Amino acid sequence: MRFTSETSSGGVATRLFTLGEIPGVLWTPEQLSGTPPLILLGHGGGQHKQAPGLEARARRFVADGGFAVAAVDAPAHGGRPRTDQVDRIVARLRGGGDVAPVLVELHTLLAEQSVPEWRAVLDALPEHLGAGPVGYWGMSLGCGLGVPLIAAEPRIRAAVLGLNGDATGAAARITVPVEFLVQWDDQLVPRAASLALFDRFASAEKTLHANPGGHGEVPAFEVDSSIRFFSRHLS
Amino acid sequence: MRFTSETSSGGVATRLFTLGEIPGVLWTPEQLSGTPPLILLGHGGGQHKQAPGLEARARRFVADGGFAVAAVDAPAHGGRPRTDQVDRIVARLRGGGDVAPVLVELHTLLAEQSVPEWRAVLDALPEHLGAGPVGYWGMSLGCGLGVPLIAAEPRIRAAVLGLNGDATGAAARITVPVEFLVQWDDQLVPRAASLALFDRFASAEKTLHANPGGHGEVPAFEVDSSIRFFSRHLS
Repeated sequence: MRFTSETSSGGVATRLFTLGEIPGVLWTPEQLSGTPPLILLGHGGGQHKQAPGLEARARRFVADGGFAVAAVDAPAHGGRPRTDQVDRIVARLRGGGDVAPVLVELHTLLAEQSVPEWRAVLDALPEHLGAGPVGYWGMSLGCGLGVPLIAAEPRIRAAVLGLNGDATGAAARITVPVEFLVQWDDQLVPRAASLALFDRFASAEKTLHANPGGHGEVPAFEVDSSIRFFSRHLS
Repeated sequence: MRFTSETSSGGVATRLFTLGEIPGVLWTPEQLSGTPPLILLGHGGGQHKQAPGLEARARRFVADGGFAVAAVDAPAHGGRPRTDQVDRIVARLRGGGDVAPVLVELHTLLAEQSVPEWRAVLDALPEHLGAGPVGYWGMSLGCGLGVPLIAAEPRIRAAVLGLNGDATGAAARITVPVEFLVQWDDQLVPRAASLALFDRFASAEKTLHANPGGHGEVPAFEVDSSIRFFSRHLS
């Protein structure tokens, strides 16, 4: 893991890194005392590790939760190389129609690469940060890639997921606490698919939050809820 | 409105009252400065205004939210007279089978009496408490009686409802913010009926919280969420 830049503002230190081919970013409290819980942020489809909404959320998590936060560019995102196979799926997404099964196909393909990448990041970070408890936050693509990661990765102890009804079997192997967000009028994810995914988590504690509005319209108060959820389970 | 007793413990003053035939209780901060928001609590079926779970919730609302809280015995509850019609419905509930439509019938019947009773309490309380913003909290029967009350009563500005799929049309006339609780494995209320009731609220801000477990097993962290919800909308 090689750190390539460090800046700081508003009490939050931002460090860019690369790990092999993976570009990433680590946000931490400027004044770090002890080992903070670490939250992995999985960005949405077509976004990248420093998309404005993601970065704003990371800064809230650091400033108000006292967490360290890491994000990476997902495979085929943020300027990373795209295979012909990915290009063909993205073209089908842009073609419109019923995109839900196409999204499942894309997420399943990208997860094959993304899961080992996230695990390598989790291997590398403790040298720089200490080994605190780990949480995962991801919506949409970030949920689709997060579900198989969390199922495979015992270091992740709590997760905020949502905006996805991905039908992989991995959800049934997740037993850590989950807060799951549903947009009630989601134009990309059928409501029934979202509810079915929530149903499949094997977690003893799982809580579903549904709010009106489309795919990208999660209300601001859910950020506060995510911070409280992670504080309850990781602090 | 006649106050019949006053006690105080743990910073919370508890006053019993009667208003005509209606027995009620008012909890307030012992040290009251200004006019607090008022939360009306609607108890569950077979319970009463000082059922242990309800009283514990009232005390949390006062101590941690700074609210005043009022509860009344619902019609046919807490020693209040029961009509033959109510007795016959309750006997059918005890007979088992599909109780969901029987609960709707009971709630519809009781609401005819309960809605004007709550409105009379709202008329009478300001003399003793001042006229602050008003919220309503009610699960199960408390939701079934709350929906027509909130639809009829412009003084109620936010509501936490749940554990009910009552099919009255009143829900579509509710426009205030609603936090709606669903128990994912509710043995009394079909999941689809709960989701359909949430769907019907006309509120621009409504948020559904679903958690695993049966009808009475709402997790403790939802009390904190209710307090934050009322603080956000009434304070």
